[in-house]
Amino acid sequence: MTGQPAPPRADLDLHHDLDLHGDVVDLTRSLCDIESVSGHEATLADAVERALRALSHLEVLRDGNAVVARTSLGRPERVVVAGHLDTVPVATLDGRRNLPTWTTGAGDGLVVHGRGTVDMKGGVAVQLAVAADVTDPVRDVTWVFYDCEEVEAERNGLGRLARDHPDWLAGDFAVLCEPTDGTVEGGCNGTIRVEVRVTGVAAHSARAWMGDNAVHRAAAVLERLRAYQAREVDVDGLRYRESLGAVGIRGGVAGNVVPDECVVTVNYRFAPSRTPQEAEDHLRVLFEGFEVTVTDCSPGARPGLDHPAAAAFVAAIGREPQPKQGWTDVARFSAMGVPAVNFGPGDPLLAHRDDERCPADQIVAARDALRAWLAGDV
Amino acid sequence: MTGQPAPPRADLDLHHDLDLHGDVVDLTRSLCDIESVSGHEATLADAVERALRALSHLEVLRDGNAVVARTSLGRPERVVVAGHLDTVPVATLDGRRNLPTWTTGAGDGLVVHGRGTVDMKGGVAVQLAVAADVTDPVRDVTWVFYDCEEVEAERNGLGRLARDHPDWLAGDFAVLCEPTDGTVEGGCNGTIRVEVRVTGVAAHSARAWMGDNAVHRAAAVLERLRAYQAREVDVDGLRYRESLGAVGIRGGVAGNVVPDECVVTVNYRFAPSRTPQEAEDHLRVLFEGFEVTVTDCSPGARPGLDHPAAAAFVAAIGREPQPKQGWTDVARFSAMGVPAVNFGPGDPLLAHRDDERCPADQIVAARDALRAWLAGDV
Repeated sequence: MTGQPAPPRADLDLHHDLDLHGDVVDLTRSLCDIESVSGHEATLADAVERALRALSHLEVLRDGNAVVARTSLGRPERVVVAGHLDTVPVATLDGRRNLPTWTTGAGDGLVVHGRGTVDMKGGVAVQLAVAADVTDPVRDVTWVFYDCEEVEAERNGLGRLARDHPDWLAGDFAVLCEPTDGTVEGGCNGTIRVEVRVTGVAAHSARAWMGDNAVHRAAAVLERLRAYQAREVDVDGLRYRESLGAVGIRGGVAGNVVPDECVVTVNYRFAPSRTPQEAEDHLRVLFEGFEVTVTDCSPGARPGLDHPAAAAFVAAIGREPQPKQGWTDVARFSAMGVPAVNFGPGDPLLAHRDDERCPADQIVAARDALRAWLAGDV
Repeated sequence: MTGQPAPPRADLDLHHDLDLHGDVVDLTRSLCDIESVSGHEATLADAVERALRALSHLEVLRDGNAVVARTSLGRPERVVVAGHLDTVPVATLDGRRNLPTWTTGAGDGLVVHGRGTVDMKGGVAVQLAVAADVTDPVRDVTWVFYDCEEVEAERNGLGRLARDHPDWLAGDFAVLCEPTDGTVEGGCNGTIRVEVRVTGVAAHSARAWMGDNAVHRAAAVLERLRAYQAREVDVDGLRYRESLGAVGIRGGVAGNVVPDECVVTVNYRFAPSRTPQEAEDHLRVLFEGFEVTVTDCSPGARPGLDHPAAAAFVAAIGREPQPKQGWTDVARFSAMGVPAVNFGPGDPLLAHRDDERCPADQIVAARDALRAWLAGDV
């Protein structure tokens, strides 16, 4: 007898061990194949934590299903590189489930298909590969992997870290590895939603002249929306295109009643040079004469490309930076005073689509660019 | 032993025996106090049938909760006098249930309060009182009491009789004892509802310029509605006022999506000189360029006041006849080729209201007028 056998290790699952030193495209597929729809990231977060703990140059921290790993080399500058672990739900397209992943083409034409390949396991693979490879970066790095980006804002893992562990996110500059087709997309537009309420007087529709039809009166609101010319605004050298329009309309209680209320829901995506209050004021002027209620609002983020670390990053990528029109978590860094950009493999227009897919060479190129920037090769 | 005692008669309930020869206002209250919300008319229909069977000059027929009683004196003319037994649900107003009935005032100022006093137990009381009193009418009379007028058209008791026993409803002229404030209201407008569908192209609201907003495009539909001038139309000497307007609008699927569809529901109340097809055609022209779908339609009814029996009835009432703007079951008689008018006690604007109430003198006056017309006293 040499003693009792060791108990099975519950946290060890060879199928879920990630190889950070191998092919970054294979790593992308491994990350995708550990299904991690929002709220179900535990298995993937465990695998990421385990892989990072094997790297002696990194300190690893954990909060819920968020994992943070960082160097502490005393560099004059610290950068944060962040990505989310969750995906939107797995779907079925033409009878085929879009997980596990599969590939088409070969060589330069290799494409990885499946849920998460664009949004954003390709970006997470780039993060993990560079975290493992660049053991002595010229800038201190904090790698952030978080949960619940694809669901309600209050569940967002990056928001939770900002509330509970703001020191984990401290830095001079941040890169969010959301898909950008491999270019740098700076900042993001803000978004505000309001309800514009039009009132009238109810009546039986057989005696409509005794009422005042709120739906008819809403024509004035729709005309203002139709006539509205959205701005294009230069902010820190990038050109942001605004959007303003109805995302919903409702009115009426029964088939024989003149409606006494009609509500138009309006979404305004505003350039990051405008504050949420300025955006709200703009809408109140536009819809003067009607009751305007703000239902939700998130500020935009300035691109911050004038920051030296950002300029160096743009130079390392070697392509013209672009504005990000949609809202992303870069705004959370912006709110903490950390300039942030989006940079990652994959076409953002394919995100959330059932036929989500990413060219393998974009993943490799993003890995090479991020590695060069952190290794000081550019 | 003189034999076994007779078994108790299940159909005899003294509390529900109606006195057709007494005070017509008391009779109104008795009819109201036998609660008979649509679908629950059996107790009241039983009481009405029992009271009518006690009258030897009438033949009594029964179908479900509809009761028909008629004379067969070989008169050259037959008139149908109809009313519904059901009410909308009992309600509570200022902590008081609006059944059983109560009264306020006295003498000429006596008012009966409670559910059904207007719509239309006052009218039913007038029918029953005259049915009992005029045993030898100058016109043959068919008295019709029916169920489920206040609910979906397919449950309507008069519609069921028209389908299953059209001979029971045969006549030269019909009076529907719906509340009209004691005047004759001729015919009724028709009603048609359509959905006007405006289409567009969906897009993410952060890139609204890639879509075509269907809600914005609906402004054109609302402008046409707002500009529309409803007609007033003379039909057989009465002036009908049409109505046309939105009764509902809906559009939008999510707070970040440019809507690709907006549906406006429009209700058109059209004068009885227009057929349903003509009404539909009118709407298709008005909304040219948009998809128009008819969801429901009921024809109007011409007043038919040029018919000799109708003219005699108007003369007996002695007040200027008025057009009926709302849709009523006179249209069912009209569809069977029987001219029909509305005539009954109670202000139609109080129908369905929780504070429904009827002046007692209107009930008496309506009883007197109907009795004089049938007795040949005018």
